[in-house]
Amino acid sequence: MNQASPSTDQGAVGPLIPVLAVVGVGLIGGSFAAALRQAGQVGQVLGVGRNASSLARAVELGLIDEAVSAEDAASRADLILLSTPVGGLKNVLARMLPHLGAATVLTDAGSTKAEVVEAAREALGGSIGRFVPGHPIAGAERTGPDAADAELYRGRTVILTPIAENSASSADLVRRAWEACGASVIDMDADAHDRVLASVSHLPHLLSSVYMEQVATAADARTRLDLAGSGFRDFTRIAAGSPEMWRDIFLSNRDAMLAELADLRAVLDRAERAIAHGDDAALLALLDTAAQARRRWRKE
Amino acid sequence: MNQASPSTDQGAVGPLIPVLAVVGVGLIGGSFAAALRQAGQVGQVLGVGRNASSLARAVELGLIDEAVSAEDAASRADLILLSTPVGGLKNVLARMLPHLGAATVLTDAGSTKAEVVEAAREALGGSIGRFVPGHPIAGAERTGPDAADAELYRGRTVILTPIAENSASSADLVRRAWEACGASVIDMDADAHDRVLASVSHLPHLLSSVYMEQVATAADARTRLDLAGSGFRDFTRIAAGSPEMWRDIFLSNRDAMLAELADLRAVLDRAERAIAHGDDAALLALLDTAAQARRRWRKE
Repeated sequence: MNQASPSTDQGAVGPLIPVLAVVGVGLIGGSFAAALRQAGQVGQVLGVGRNASSLARAVELGLIDEAVSAEDAASRADLILLSTPVGGLKNVLARMLPHLGAATVLTDAGSTKAEVVEAAREALGGSIGRFVPGHPIAGAERTGPDAADAELYRGRTVILTPIAENSASSADLVRRAWEACGASVIDMDADAHDRVLASVSHLPHLLSSVYMEQVATAADARTRLDLAGSGFRDFTRIAAGSPEMWRDIFLSNRDAMLAELADLRAVLDRAERAIAHGDDAALLALLDTAAQARRRWRKE
Repeated sequence: MNQASPSTDQGAVGPLIPVLAVVGVGLIGGSFAAALRQAGQVGQVLGVGRNASSLARAVELGLIDEAVSAEDAASRADLILLSTPVGGLKNVLARMLPHLGAATVLTDAGSTKAEVVEAAREALGGSIGRFVPGHPIAGAERTGPDAADAELYRGRTVILTPIAENSASSADLVRRAWEACGASVIDMDADAHDRVLASVSHLPHLLSSVYMEQVATAADARTRLDLAGSGFRDFTRIAAGSPEMWRDIFLSNRDAMLAELADLRAVLDRAERAIAHGDDAALLALLDTAAQARRRWRKE
């Protein structure tokens, strides 16, 4: 840790975050700490978690300098990243509240934002301005401290959904921290974030899982799976993801999911009618819009 | 061509197919001809098609020896592969019927089978026994004679859906031809084929396209597409496929598609209710079935 500490020589600039705390030192939190350390933007890194062996491993890997309690992290850290499941967020914030340092800023990495903001408001009350909600659009199949990677966020997008109570300096600290990790940071409204993520991330996952469940429970499932090819492979890849994690995301983002599903059903109804009635012009128009949009994607 | 001709020395065995005709010398038909030629199982290869430059290119590439009319192909070939869109099949079979040689066998490569069999029955009448319906489960993004590849069918599955009128020797010739291309051949009932293909190939394509159309026509489509990641990429890859080809497949396989869609909607309804009512046990069970089935796939 000392090697990474800032010089205190006259004229030298200290790190952006003298003391960083990460709650949940897995892929997301561990990579955040590793990237900031690599960028020379942290002094000390504290780790908080319920799994002692995970924390010991994070120390061994040099991701964190010290494992501490949530209360200690609250009193010592300049910035705290909460990378825990949404379900546990309210509780850990409530434990931290009485101990928060005068200038401590909090942020999170949750996949949905409206529910997180609501939970944070309930836990932090008048201190809600300390909490700058965020979502790094990055992830990988792997989990745990061994999956942490200082390069995970390079070139990726991080969405912040600042709330009215956030001070400019709080939001700025979080923004600069993510930028130091190599990410591009954009601001969005929490509801817009949730709707967009429901659309481009959560709904495909639900559809892929629903489809896969249908195939797997068919009477002739074995024949179907034996004859499935490369289109099936790509279409169902995401259905292999963690059932617990995705259940939490779907329930946490319920309203946006139901709105997207309703819109999807309208298009599905249109396609089904076109097939049922042999309306080849309508079917072709729909397929053509989709094919052209997909071919243009990431080419503009 | 002469190099590929069989020896007529005493004791030598001739090729499986002295004269092969391919209607539609693109990826599917051209690869069939190339694979049989490579295996030493064809004497002469005739090509039939509407596009003169395509046929000239097929001669130049050595895929076919000669471009001929459908009538000539009928009178001269021992085996005829029809690799044309289903829509044109009936017409070309009707043209061939009066000219068919005494032992000529016909087969096809269409993605759906019930409609093909119906069209072939109408065109061939009492000669329907000559027609052995087939479907090679292979394909590639590329099309045309330049895409033809003698290795395309190696290790792939070809489904035959023989009809009651087929003689054992007709079905056997088609089976041995595909096996000479390196494929595994299985038999199925035409309706079972159509239902299975609707499930593992056609329905994923429709869902991917429906989803992509919804995203592309949303008011905030640009924001959505900018924030879409690797899950979206895989889930929508097939939506870029040929709108014309997929329209034809969906309409040709209408009944099976509608049946699969109804089953899918039942699972989708269940998932949506679980999200709407916060039924986390039901949601987890569905996601878990899907994830386990996907993780097991191709690992048994």
